[in-house]
Amino acid sequence: MSKPIVLRLGEVFYADKAWKQLESIATVIVDDSKNRQEFLENLQGKYKDVQYITRTFGSANQTGLFDEELIKHLPDSVIAVCHNGAGYDQVDPHALAERKIQLSNVPELVDDSTADTHVFLLLGALRNFSDGHHRLLRGEWPASPRAAGTPVAHDPKGKTVGIVGLGGIGRNVLKKLKPFGFERFVYHNRNKLNEELEGGAEYVSFDELLATSDIISINVPLNKHTKHMFNADVFAKVKKGAVLVNTARGGVIDETALIQALKDGTLRSAGLDVLENEPNVNLELVSLPNVLALPHMGTHSVETIQAMEEFVVENVENVIKTGKVISLVPEQKELF
Amino acid sequence: MSKPIVLRLGEVFYADKAWKQLESIATVIVDDSKNRQEFLENLQGKYKDVQYITRTFGSANQTGLFDEELIKHLPDSVIAVCHNGAGYDQVDPHALAERKIQLSNVPELVDDSTADTHVFLLLGALRNFSDGHHRLLRGEWPASPRAAGTPVAHDPKGKTVGIVGLGGIGRNVLKKLKPFGFERFVYHNRNKLNEELEGGAEYVSFDELLATSDIISINVPLNKHTKHMFNADVFAKVKKGAVLVNTARGGVIDETALIQALKDGTLRSAGLDVLENEPNVNLELVSLPNVLALPHMGTHSVETIQAMEEFVVENVENVIKTGKVISLVPEQKELF
Repeated sequence: MSKPIVLRLGEVFYADKAWKQLESIATVIVDDSKNRQEFLENLQGKYKDVQYITRTFGSANQTGLFDEELIKHLPDSVIAVCHNGAGYDQVDPHALAERKIQLSNVPELVDDSTADTHVFLLLGALRNFSDGHHRLLRGEWPASPRAAGTPVAHDPKGKTVGIVGLGGIGRNVLKKLKPFGFERFVYHNRNKLNEELEGGAEYVSFDELLATSDIISINVPLNKHTKHMFNADVFAKVKKGAVLVNTARGGVIDETALIQALKDGTLRSAGLDVLENEPNVNLELVSLPNVLALPHMGTHSVETIQAMEEFVVENVENVIKTGKVISLVPEQKELF
Repeated sequence: MSKPIVLRLGEVFYADKAWKQLESIATVIVDDSKNRQEFLENLQGKYKDVQYITRTFGSANQTGLFDEELIKHLPDSVIAVCHNGAGYDQVDPHALAERKIQLSNVPELVDDSTADTHVFLLLGALRNFSDGHHRLLRGEWPASPRAAGTPVAHDPKGKTVGIVGLGGIGRNVLKKLKPFGFERFVYHNRNKLNEELEGGAEYVSFDELLATSDIISINVPLNKHTKHMFNADVFAKVKKGAVLVNTARGGVIDETALIQALKDGTLRSAGLDVLENEPNVNLELVSLPNVLALPHMGTHSVETIQAMEEFVVENVENVIKTGKVISLVPEQKELF
């Protein structure tokens, strides 16, 4: 009996050993399609017997999104798609389900490094550190002795943090923010969590969170419900001068409305690891003095990338051996 | 009987009310000397009956340092100098003591905001966030899809943090870093602390700290013992690729040696809130891609500045009423 075939999309950086071991139970094909058209053709041609597909966020540069169109082209042999990342907005879990194809992501392992990034951005936005940093580099210090002229910022003391999406990453952020002396933590999910998961944060409606939070911490996945969840109507409801932090996905914020809110003082500042059309950046947004932005570095660490890559291989091994991936995405939980 | 006279050096931003109240028990003179020469003359002239002096870090721009020369010029009437800041390296406590003049600083109140700055810089340096931020702003993202080409950085997991100076700020840093998942905390002070103050950090020699720490966290005051404490000889002893964070005083580091260590990979990165010749900055140092630097923003927040300014007034009130300042500096502890 021949080994099952695994098609690998996107680069592997630190998990060569795990992939090498996988070859004892599977045949691994590394995708070399130059663009989506070629990939779609290969799916009907040289990839026609593939059973498992692994993919990375970056592989969308070659294949494009795993949307309904692409998923229709997958050969009938495909059993599972194993995505390397916590967020899987590049993949349509429903279209896969209709074809009885499982989808796994990489939850939990990304929580620490993403939350670390979140805390960095939150502190930076709260304390105007980006503005100060750039004033320093522009040589403005000698002329403006006090912090090179940076507007005086604020401390955690007395402030309310509103966590939108108290899932794995949101809870990790909460845990790390606790020693900083904030006054109060509130959160909003679709449903109230049990007390243990809440970890001391108070459940409030979305509107109450907006009205009472000095810092709004965004930790929701991007999907059709959360697309542009933060828009002009929502910014009209925030506490004047709130700080916004987003390490989830750029698409949950309407960036045109965000720029306006940052310019007119509705929001005092923002910390952003993710942008709507990344890697194509709105330079006006990221260059605002009250914005501290990063190029999607939430999981950009050796330890986290390696752990994620290895977990993708574990998912493949598991589905080969048991018929089920380890970390089925929530949308498919009832189906497999 | 006439009211005691308080001479105020440097600006007051948020404590107008406290100063107004002080006027019920004291006559407040606001210094208007344009330079050190004029200040020294005023001390013998219109300030000749002053009993209490308050000063800020920024007032050195007018008066220069409170060094032996200046202190010799203080009139005999002076009882106390109340400095607004935790670090008082601008003032010579021994020269004041010889003239029986008390010196107070502002400890504790600065711990939170300084430690927040420290954690921000530590995360930023550990995760290469400064480099990524600048690559983003330079528009390098589309060409380099993965984090705009930023070198992959590291997580707290498995790392040792070495705290040099486990005092109020060092302990506050320790408390805030605990939830981030570091492997181990070590510290070096002149003397081992009791277990409660250690807070789980292990006492090691300075050389052992250098040899074992992945992150070196500097929290020592600047004085003749700590001046250029971090120099080429010391950098030769650090664990290869360590991360250095300094929110204490720039003068504890020899910046020429630091630049060399950052260029040759001895240090992987640095987070710096303070610089040796601030506000005159070594632009080569702060512009290195592996440096995240701020223009001395450790206490640059409304809440902290106000609390510090008000505490200076409390010190003055206390010494007027009781003959002793509240927060005598350690060098003078046995003397008053």
